[in-house]
Amino acid sequence: MLLIDGLECSNYNREIFRELHDAKVSAVTITAAFWEDALETMDELGRWNDRARNNADLITIARTAEDIESAAAGGRTAVILGVQNSTPLNDRLRFVELFHRMGLRVMQLTYNNQNAVGGSCYEPEDSGLTRFGREVVHEMNRVGMLVDLSHVGNRTSLEAIHASESPVAITHANPASLVEHPRNKPDDVLKALADAGGVLGLATYNNIAGDYATSPQAWADMVARTVDLIGIDHVGIGTDLGQNSGDGDLDWMRRGRWTRDAQPGAALSNVPEQDWFRSPTHFEAITSALRDHGRFEEKDIDAILGGNWMRLYRGVFKP
Amino acid sequence: MLLIDGLECSNYNREIFRELHDAKVSAVTITAAFWEDALETMDELGRWNDRARNNADLITIARTAEDIESAAAGGRTAVILGVQNSTPLNDRLRFVELFHRMGLRVMQLTYNNQNAVGGSCYEPEDSGLTRFGREVVHEMNRVGMLVDLSHVGNRTSLEAIHASESPVAITHANPASLVEHPRNKPDDVLKALADAGGVLGLATYNNIAGDYATSPQAWADMVARTVDLIGIDHVGIGTDLGQNSGDGDLDWMRRGRWTRDAQPGAALSNVPEQDWFRSPTHFEAITSALRDHGRFEEKDIDAILGGNWMRLYRGVFKP
Repeated sequence: MLLIDGLECSNYNREIFRELHDAKVSAVTITAAFWEDALETMDELGRWNDRARNNADLITIARTAEDIESAAAGGRTAVILGVQNSTPLNDRLRFVELFHRMGLRVMQLTYNNQNAVGGSCYEPEDSGLTRFGREVVHEMNRVGMLVDLSHVGNRTSLEAIHASESPVAITHANPASLVEHPRNKPDDVLKALADAGGVLGLATYNNIAGDYATSPQAWADMVARTVDLIGIDHVGIGTDLGQNSGDGDLDWMRRGRWTRDAQPGAALSNVPEQDWFRSPTHFEAITSALRDHGRFEEKDIDAILGGNWMRLYRGVFKP
Repeated sequence: MLLIDGLECSNYNREIFRELHDAKVSAVTITAAFWEDALETMDELGRWNDRARNNADLITIARTAEDIESAAAGGRTAVILGVQNSTPLNDRLRFVELFHRMGLRVMQLTYNNQNAVGGSCYEPEDSGLTRFGREVVHEMNRVGMLVDLSHVGNRTSLEAIHASESPVAITHANPASLVEHPRNKPDDVLKALADAGGVLGLATYNNIAGDYATSPQAWADMVARTVDLIGIDHVGIGTDLGQNSGDGDLDWMRRGRWTRDAQPGAALSNVPEQDWFRSPTHFEAITSALRDHGRFEEKDIDAILGGNWMRLYRGVFKP
């Protein structure tokens, strides 16, 4: 059984790597960029190369689905390098391939704002997938980089799902029909994602999990309802966990360099922070709640915990 | 027998790739940057990825010495991605590894000016290998990138040869004791290079080959004299051939963005352009002149034409 977290945004250190290791997390997609450009993202990828070398007993950077399996077999956590924006491309199509060579395997098309590729979930207008965006999606397909639509606007998401030749992901969001929030996805987007073979990573983040964030049992119930909605093959986990993050980090995520005004980010709703999933060591609460729910057979639990991500990664990543 | 050109600076197109192919050139190190920074160099590496795809019947990008052998076995020319400056690093140590991942295998520490890494052959003062320069050389050793000292100042060159844990190259220069020119190398630098297992690529470029550029026979005689100087294991070819280059290209090479004044570059001397080596198809003139010289056995000719480069690449490049 593989345990995969489809999206985290922690400030990693050896302690967190040890928690991932102790919780037997097989793989985690990390966030190497929110608003960063090409050079800044390369700085962070360079730091990840150092982190992987300095913590080689606990983690390794995965470039293929097979890398995840061998990491798990060797008792290490595979780090999948991801970014939550297409700003690292600096508007250059050819940088998709270069970043793939540098190890990047997951790219969200937009973060919280409209960009050259498409519209964001927080924009009043969504441009749809732009001319450049269509090129980027095809290039990601060609080189083997997973398209992530989590913060992307609904129109752009639907157009990207249809434009993409490979299945895509929503690595960290929940169904809007269960929890209304701009970051969550309406049923038509989720069904199109599933029809195309994609995977939705359900988030434990209180602001977008709402009442379902109050306990592992409530969260397991959201999993069950989402499985009812789009099928057992298309639901995974993408906690959006952000360990070791301070106000400065939140400020960067929410305001970047694009505004001087206060920005709530996902904290539009007034949902209290949950305390049952604050670290990878708490994954056991999720596993137990899924088992106790009664809705799932063991093979379903395997699919949700990591099997579905693995199928997607196998189909998308290339060496 | 492998035929390797250790340094060219042409503006490649399909016609030139066909000439390399027809001349059975096994490998050529190209110039992806003179003054370019990280982003500009990545643009060019991206274009090389396209060129390799669009001319896959003629060329392939080599990442290892084995790639060169398989390219040669398959009748294709291996392109080794090189830069003639360390400006692509944008002063970042970690970019050495990232550029290696993007396929870069040869980096000249400085072009015509002092930079953050060391001093240039044209500077009145040579800083020597700087603190950052020492880090860069060690990082190039670690990841498997060849250190090139062709345009580098003599003090920096000697310090880099001693700092490097792997053999290094002077990919395109001639002995200053045969042709006096700032771009050519004094005997102490050449002997230190050879003592450390390195290779000197002799250039056909008239401005630095002087009287030895007047005919293939004269040039073969420079090869013989250089072999007398540093030994048969340390002499190769690095023509410095620049096909399809116009005034704009020369202007960029000589003035970059660092001056508005006219700059002669290597054209300090008044040597007429040679006409016997203007294209890879003329390699046959070199091979014949080496054979006819009388000084070399067949195994010596193999070493000069490609064997010495291959030994160096095998020892330095890593997958």
